[in-house]
Amino acid sequence: MSDLPAPEPLPADAGLTVAGLSESQLLERIFPRLIVPEPAGGPEAPTSLLLGPGDDAAIVAAPDGRTILSIDTQVADQDFRLQWNNGYRTSGYDVGWKAAAQNLSDINAMGARSTSLVVSLTMPPETPVSWVEDFADGLTAGIRELGARGCTVAGGDLGRGRELAVSVAIVGTLDGKEPVLRSGARPGDTVALAGTVGRAAAGLALLESEISVVELTAAQRALMDTQCRPLPPLAAGPAARDAGASAMMDISDGLVRDGNRMAAASHAVLNLDAAALKELAVPLLPASELLGADPMPWVLGGGEDHGLLATFPAGVQLPAGFTAIGSVETPAPTESTGVKIAGRPADAVGWDHFAD
Amino acid sequence: MSDLPAPEPLPADAGLTVAGLSESQLLERIFPRLIVPEPAGGPEAPTSLLLGPGDDAAIVAAPDGRTILSIDTQVADQDFRLQWNNGYRTSGYDVGWKAAAQNLSDINAMGARSTSLVVSLTMPPETPVSWVEDFADGLTAGIRELGARGCTVAGGDLGRGRELAVSVAIVGTLDGKEPVLRSGARPGDTVALAGTVGRAAAGLALLESEISVVELTAAQRALMDTQCRPLPPLAAGPAARDAGASAMMDISDGLVRDGNRMAAASHAVLNLDAAALKELAVPLLPASELLGADPMPWVLGGGEDHGLLATFPAGVQLPAGFTAIGSVETPAPTESTGVKIAGRPADAVGWDHFAD
Repeated sequence: MSDLPAPEPLPADAGLTVAGLSESQLLERIFPRLIVPEPAGGPEAPTSLLLGPGDDAAIVAAPDGRTILSIDTQVADQDFRLQWNNGYRTSGYDVGWKAAAQNLSDINAMGARSTSLVVSLTMPPETPVSWVEDFADGLTAGIRELGARGCTVAGGDLGRGRELAVSVAIVGTLDGKEPVLRSGARPGDTVALAGTVGRAAAGLALLESEISVVELTAAQRALMDTQCRPLPPLAAGPAARDAGASAMMDISDGLVRDGNRMAAASHAVLNLDAAALKELAVPLLPASELLGADPMPWVLGGGEDHGLLATFPAGVQLPAGFTAIGSVETPAPTESTGVKIAGRPADAVGWDHFAD
Repeated sequence: MSDLPAPEPLPADAGLTVAGLSESQLLERIFPRLIVPEPAGGPEAPTSLLLGPGDDAAIVAAPDGRTILSIDTQVADQDFRLQWNNGYRTSGYDVGWKAAAQNLSDINAMGARSTSLVVSLTMPPETPVSWVEDFADGLTAGIRELGARGCTVAGGDLGRGRELAVSVAIVGTLDGKEPVLRSGARPGDTVALAGTVGRAAAGLALLESEISVVELTAAQRALMDTQCRPLPPLAAGPAARDAGASAMMDISDGLVRDGNRMAAASHAVLNLDAAALKELAVPLLPASELLGADPMPWVLGGGEDHGLLATFPAGVQLPAGFTAIGSVETPAPTESTGVKIAGRPADAVGWDHFAD
């Protein structure tokens, strides 16, 4: 491990930890950073926040009388490492960005638009205050840079714990339209993908390797960045809904595992095209060649890119950003639902939180 | 410690831990328990849940075009102990109940009605499956028995971590009325309290004492139960709103600390009546006498009962459940806002998460 880079110098006020501030003092430092910045020169985004942080609860507009709601948690050493094997140190910015991304993706996957989120941050007392400020910056930057216009941070909760954990709950609006569920795939539909798959998994392999982060090429580094700061395709969800997608979900546990869930909910078989899957592996070659690894398990089993898996009725023109990767079929009488590749059952190779 | 009771026998399937099940298998065991039961013979409660667990996000009705939103997290060994000093072992039921109670209280404190919640549970792999089932039972029982009619569990997230933690995010509706903020207290208003204060703190002192749980009287045990399964007065929030409360918040960090927050938001002094505070200490005597402790710090600094602190314009008849405990005053020119007791500044003795 002697070829790993020296740890980056800690920020100047690294000596100040959350144990050194009261909850109110810490909130005072963070609140101003939770205002989602506007893109320079862009039009002002409409906000849905009717009452922001500071009271017992926030109030968010739900103009069509419905609210979309989801929650996701990240825990240090389970969902990310603060210090990776290749020398990279996860920043508060990374964790904040990822918390935004994975929650925005859940709303996107319903064909909806995120309006607001609340965040609960649990920290060991030795956490540097600068880390928390960086977390707040990453959270708001993720919202803005991923294009979730008008989405705000409505409030939250700070607490102490032995391990660092962040829970985000997010609400959104359907803008008067109908949601796209995972249960609507029908035989004859086209299976399509927006965003990426496998890149975060390739990035994870790089982070866990002995090859120092400073030796990575730009292409390898980009894969690593997808693990730390994923880029869910937020324009694709509402676009798919408007184009008439029959089913949709976000891929967070892997194409095969999540595809099996869509197939089960839709009582169908998703038959994926082998050539299309091979194409998805091409961007992963910079990592697979460096590590001497097979990229296909990353394509089939890697989550965390938060790509969108959707199905569209035959004849529908796929919206921008979607690539056809297969078709929906009726299971044969003795056959179960699930993902097939070129007609043969795919093994479930996605990540399971509990099975060892 | 030899006089502590023997640990209660573990349930029959305690050998089965969450590590022994896949996430899907665990969800299958929990989903049926997340349906909030109806009171026997009662009328069917209207549900606001338009789409429940199983997709990327849930959909909840927001009939007046607004959603109230909050999030709260509990972490083992920070917010509760799995095994207390007095021999009591915190059950999954307790943790589920408390998660429901503290979140329902946040919505209540706005004068609103909870419609749905999502839950994220982070668990060490050795957590017994029976504990998780018990957690789900406590969560739904809390919703039902605290009287949050029509509130449902809309979905959630299961994950692994070194320490047990639960985050709940809750949404609610204002039913077309205006929320009661903490900033509306005006000079001349009556300060009033619904629910209890100090009982959870007295219960905590009992849990942390060397006096075995099996030796407690019913009155002492009831104080302990308030710590483990708090009873926020859910009817009081909307009742206060309808009666014209000028300000309201839930007491989760202590009467003085939370009162200081209301006073600051309202640019006012809350002058509390010493005799009324003494009255609040009476129910705590079974614990204070046993432990040789002063009950007043529990009254002034104890949170977690989730009582409601509210102010009402003079002349308004207090709704059922509220007791007058003081009045709102204008700060003198050189004076800061805050809580006073009989005209003298109260020290902030509430719990702070970070200051040691």
